[in-house]
Amino acid sequence: MVLSPLASPSLPLFDRIAYIGIGLINSSVARVVQRDRLAAATVACARSAVNRAAALHLGLVDVVTSDVTEAVTGADLIMLGTPVSAYESLARMMAPHLSPGAIITDVGSVKETVIRSVTPHLPDHVHFVPGHPIAGTEHSGPEAGLTELFVGRWTILTPPAGTNPAAIERVRALWESCGARVNFMNPAHHDRVLAITSHLPHLIAYTIVGTATDLEDDMQHEVIKYSASGFRDFTRIAASDPVMWRDIFLNNKEAVLESLQRFTEDLTALQRAIRWGQGDKLEDLFTRTQAIRRSIIEAQQA
Amino acid sequence: MVLSPLASPSLPLFDRIAYIGIGLINSSVARVVQRDRLAAATVACARSAVNRAAALHLGLVDVVTSDVTEAVTGADLIMLGTPVSAYESLARMMAPHLSPGAIITDVGSVKETVIRSVTPHLPDHVHFVPGHPIAGTEHSGPEAGLTELFVGRWTILTPPAGTNPAAIERVRALWESCGARVNFMNPAHHDRVLAITSHLPHLIAYTIVGTATDLEDDMQHEVIKYSASGFRDFTRIAASDPVMWRDIFLNNKEAVLESLQRFTEDLTALQRAIRWGQGDKLEDLFTRTQAIRRSIIEAQQA
Repeated sequence: MVLSPLASPSLPLFDRIAYIGIGLINSSVARVVQRDRLAAATVACARSAVNRAAALHLGLVDVVTSDVTEAVTGADLIMLGTPVSAYESLARMMAPHLSPGAIITDVGSVKETVIRSVTPHLPDHVHFVPGHPIAGTEHSGPEAGLTELFVGRWTILTPPAGTNPAAIERVRALWESCGARVNFMNPAHHDRVLAITSHLPHLIAYTIVGTATDLEDDMQHEVIKYSASGFRDFTRIAASDPVMWRDIFLNNKEAVLESLQRFTEDLTALQRAIRWGQGDKLEDLFTRTQAIRRSIIEAQQA
Repeated sequence: MVLSPLASPSLPLFDRIAYIGIGLINSSVARVVQRDRLAAATVACARSAVNRAAALHLGLVDVVTSDVTEAVTGADLIMLGTPVSAYESLARMMAPHLSPGAIITDVGSVKETVIRSVTPHLPDHVHFVPGHPIAGTEHSGPEAGLTELFVGRWTILTPPAGTNPAAIERVRALWESCGARVNFMNPAHHDRVLAITSHLPHLIAYTIVGTATDLEDDMQHEVIKYSASGFRDFTRIAASDPVMWRDIFLNNKEAVLESLQRFTEDLTALQRAIRWGQGDKLEDLFTRTQAIRRSIIEAQQA
């Protein structure tokens, strides 16, 4: 059964969805798929027995397995939702078992290296539609998912030129069913934008929270106690999944290092303004940054 | 009328409270004071006619004035809530008009320079109890205040040795009436702790949002559009009052520059780990920072 992306929402969009990894993002998609019956059958593949049990217990999928070849067999949509360093070996393992016409998509936060590591392993008779939902929380695991996670948020798709248009439309339809708005981007451009909007902020947050963990014990105790003054907002971001983020930095190295370089230059200039008591420079910057906040509120992304 | 700090909450703690400045913090205190009738009379002094009108319109105080000498005359509590660079001239102006036994307190985010700039101007017959509530939002002005702002949060008092104990107790009673927990600290130590928990995070947030404002136009548009991926949390912090924050950095220069130095070293190490693909170092740090988040949640400051 192949459905048009314009099919009535009461009809399943897919025959069988295989979630590879059932963390925050995939489990949020799975919640919507089950609620709205967007797939006739669903399966989650997870290495962790705890996560498999949780996925069943929470009713996120019909079936769980630790075997990726079993998961993808007969699936018309395969959704990669593991840390991106696992993609290449997953692609290699699943390739011989993919049905003709199957769509492979993913939710990884970097796109160029993902495409480079997955595409060479896939057979010609499947379609790869890389994606990235711009949504999340600092929590991880199948329990952390939320049906509302994608509502009003953007999902960016970065299909290579020549990708089957019907496959793209079906992935788009799934994200729109989750309440997301869908946009298309060149993978390299995606990685550059995300380096600034996501990867650099996480790197900074991890660093500042790390700096605080290295303080003397009594000082560290007070940093926690008085965290409501700004610090705690960084700790929320710095509580994100360690392995996922390790992979993001390693797989978007160039763009992250480039935006980090810009940031460091700007920080040095600010440091100098403080040292020399240049209040006007500080006030000028702080006034400009207020305007950015207003733009985000107007763009309804606050 | 002088009341014991243990007076019944139905009796006013003060005869006349003068708020010098009626921004986020002072207007939040004023809301609690009016709601619980903690003062027999209240007055707000503000330079901005708009803020004076708002304070009256919102019923935050009985009277408003632009004249600081008029405001403090007859007041038994004077609460400084302006940017800290204004404190010295305010202290000089109000000094001749302060009633014997009057208590001067403040809500400034730095304490050493505040004490140095205010104390020399005050007459011997008044009491100075410097304070700092560890609470706030990114919004400013009298409309931004909230009765609940201090509930469960800490207020730090930094009275110099020899300060009248009864005066300290009355200031403590006011903050406890606002729902805050009160702690005492040496001013220099306060400034060091806050440099890490508050001033450095704000500096970093201002910087990263500034870095984004300097991007090419199309890129900037996308940064706003896809801000939900981490960046927007920084924009919230970087929307804080520019003049207030300019003053904080200029008045806590040494401690801010020292914590910035530590941060920069740590960021450089992380940059190096990314460049050389040292995934274990990244994962190790990211795992440690998760623990800090848990401590904050346990300390109920999240």
